Amino acid sequence: MTKALDKHKQWGGKITIQTNCEVNNSEDLSLAYTPGVAEPCLAIKENPLLSYVYTRRHNMVAVISDGSAVLGLGNIGGLAGMPVMEGKCALFKKFGDVDAFPLVLDTQNVDEIINVCKAIAPSFGGINLEDISAPRCFEIEQKLKDILDIPVFHDDQHGTAVVVLAALINALKVAEKSIKQIKVVIVGVGAAGTAIANLLLNSGVKNMLLVDKKGILCRNDNSLSEAHMIMANKTNHQLVQGDLGVAINGADVVIGVSGPNTISSQMIATMAQKAIVFAMSNPNPEIMPDLAKQGGAFLVGTGRSDFPNQINNVLAFPGIFRGALDAGAKQISEGMKLAAAYAIADLVSAEELSKDYILPKAFDSRIGQAVSKAVAHCAKSEGICR
Amino acid sequence: MTKALDKHKQWGGKITIQTNCEVNNSEDLSLAYTPGVAEPCLAIKENPLLSYVYTRRHNMVAVISDGSAVLGLGNIGGLAGMPVMEGKCALFKKFGDVDAFPLVLDTQNVDEIINVCKAIAPSFGGINLEDISAPRCFEIEQKLKDILDIPVFHDDQHGTAVVVLAALINALKVAEKSIKQIKVVIVGVGAAGTAIANLLLNSGVKNMLLVDKKGILCRNDNSLSEAHMIMANKTNHQLVQGDLGVAINGADVVIGVSGPNTISSQMIATMAQKAIVFAMSNPNPEIMPDLAKQGGAFLVGTGRSDFPNQINNVLAFPGIFRGALDAGAKQISEGMKLAAAYAIADLVSAEELSKDYILPKAFDSRIGQAVSKAVAHCAKSEGICR
Repeated sequence: MTKALDKHKQWGGKITIQTNCEVNNSEDLSLAYTPGVAEPCLAIKENPLLSYVYTRRHNMVAVISDGSAVLGLGNIGGLAGMPVMEGKCALFKKFGDVDAFPLVLDTQNVDEIINVCKAIAPSFGGINLEDISAPRCFEIEQKLKDILDIPVFHDDQHGTAVVVLAALINALKVAEKSIKQIKVVIVGVGAAGTAIANLLLNSGVKNMLLVDKKGILCRNDNSLSEAHMIMANKTNHQLVQGDLGVAINGADVVIGVSGPNTISSQMIATMAQKAIVFAMSNPNPEIMPDLAKQGGAFLVGTGRSDFPNQINNVLAFPGIFRGALDAGAKQISEGMKLAAAYAIADLVSAEELSKDYILPKAFDSRIGQAVSKAVAHCAKSEGICR
Repeated sequence: MTKALDKHKQWGGKITIQTNCEVNNSEDLSLAYTPGVAEPCLAIKENPLLSYVYTRRHNMVAVISDGSAVLGLGNIGGLAGMPVMEGKCALFKKFGDVDAFPLVLDTQNVDEIINVCKAIAPSFGGINLEDISAPRCFEIEQKLKDILDIPVFHDDQHGTAVVVLAALINALKVAEKSIKQIKVVIVGVGAAGTAIANLLLNSGVKNMLLVDKKGILCRNDNSLSEAHMIMANKTNHQLVQGDLGVAINGADVVIGVSGPNTISSQMIATMAQKAIVFAMSNPNPEIMPDLAKQGGAFLVGTGRSDFPNQINNVLAFPGIFRGALDAGAKQISEGMKLAAAYAIADLVSAEELSKDYILPKAFDSRIGQAVSKAVAHCAKSEGICR
């Protein structure tokens, strides 16, 4: 792993600023800067939408983090989270041709984070929230969506949910099951688990149990946090109580977004026929694929590139923002997320589809365009563009 | 001028984000992003100074504006000010190889601006405040200097002051006058006028009058604002009262940072022998050079490139930040500004120096290095580096 450290030192930062304009002589200077620059300034003052024409706003996204939940590292703070944010920006550019700039904050106060995002919003065409811990991330994202007219997207929630849904769509084809009839268990009810649950509910899943450290979320449990009670009210209609072992019994799908080794092969053995297991914790999944298979799993996906069926956010967020920016969308709607998931799933042809191949590879060059087209089309048809 | 508008549309923004790292396969991804990226994160968590090694912080400066005093356009707001800020970032790159990113704010509240800058500071190695109106800019800059350990620099103040001092140093050589004996009048006591006054006082000027719309600043005038009273206490030791006509009588140097056509050739005629006139208002100076010459001016400088002696901030700020970043300076001190001014002045050789050539041209390729070396050397000798 020293190689990663050496590389980071050698790069000296993974992003740089480049200029689109020539500045080689006085005339260049008089066009790009004073006095010529007064013209686009006054044009934007007259019509704020021209900020999308005369500045980089049309393609510029902020990647903002307070460093409270960075990868599996936990709360390491904004400064220490910067290498991840720079990496995210590199992925935005590579996979979506989106200019993304990383901003790490020295505050973890919800109101302050909201105020900072609001204050800098005129500089950007979108905001990608990153690695902000639950439940704070829910309030931050919702308030920003309410007050800003540019897309605000918390990738740890929605990007993850989109790729999980894409994986599930294709996994169900292989298993020949209907999304309306399956029982789904989600292990871990933080940012990702909550967003996955919501997107799957919006995609037709009826029977869902959410399991946190304290067991199955149930609306009869008065000790639940506000965020968990909201989710309990949407799931577990039979008011089941118990631990993960109880929840997983008879499930068709289990999705882990919790931490290493929380699922045993004995538990997998109690699942329904053709059990689907997505163990997303990275780098150490909730259960290793070979153990899951030993327990009888039919199809296994993880977050890792060294096993089949990598469920990787990079399939979704670059194309989602590319599409939102192309369409001039003022938000990223539930419909746009669903469109992205289906576009990703559709890239695996019926011939290719198998229990070891449910998602396109990260470097499949078709993905960015397929996702962005679907997302932009959806945004336009929903009439949520500027 | 439609050419500037066309160009801005064609550029679609004057800056873009580029990546320093390859992301062409899974191994690249595992180094630049997860799991490899955890290593530099943890290293920075352990030692925050490593943020200058493993991220772009060592070369990244924020160009921050609330759009309250953009060029000569006044308070057009942050959004409309973005073309100027992008242009500034392009100049940072071209003339200083500094990565600069523009942030325009939707607030003009002093405390909110301070809070935003403080919150995003871990993302940057320096902050360049831009086009923020006086006297708000003084408080914002001072508070940020107090709380942050990265350089904070308001270019409209200090960049202007540095190039004016550089111009004055060489103009005085041509006029064969001593800085300690001259009478200087500064017309306009906003951000630039105040900073010029302070830097000239620190450079040895003893006899100085500051003139605002209401006349000469005098400490006997109880109606002065707090910012103006501070300056009145440092100048006008003889408690002269009156208008610009009174002030300019017998002056060796008049420096205009006010607005078009505030100085008449009749006023120039009352100045001392070998009168030096810097009429900096842009694009329309306080007095046109030919009129100043008619009034008897010996040497005239303006902010414009189409007259001799352009006094242009681009001579200073890129090299100042380059030097501060190279040295790891935690601030930009008065000494560093003086060093920059002398470095700029020194680039004009005794043979070249004349009343029509007191400053190097903006595109003189020696400037960036000369300024940055002098600034870095000064920072190190002052012991203000991290």
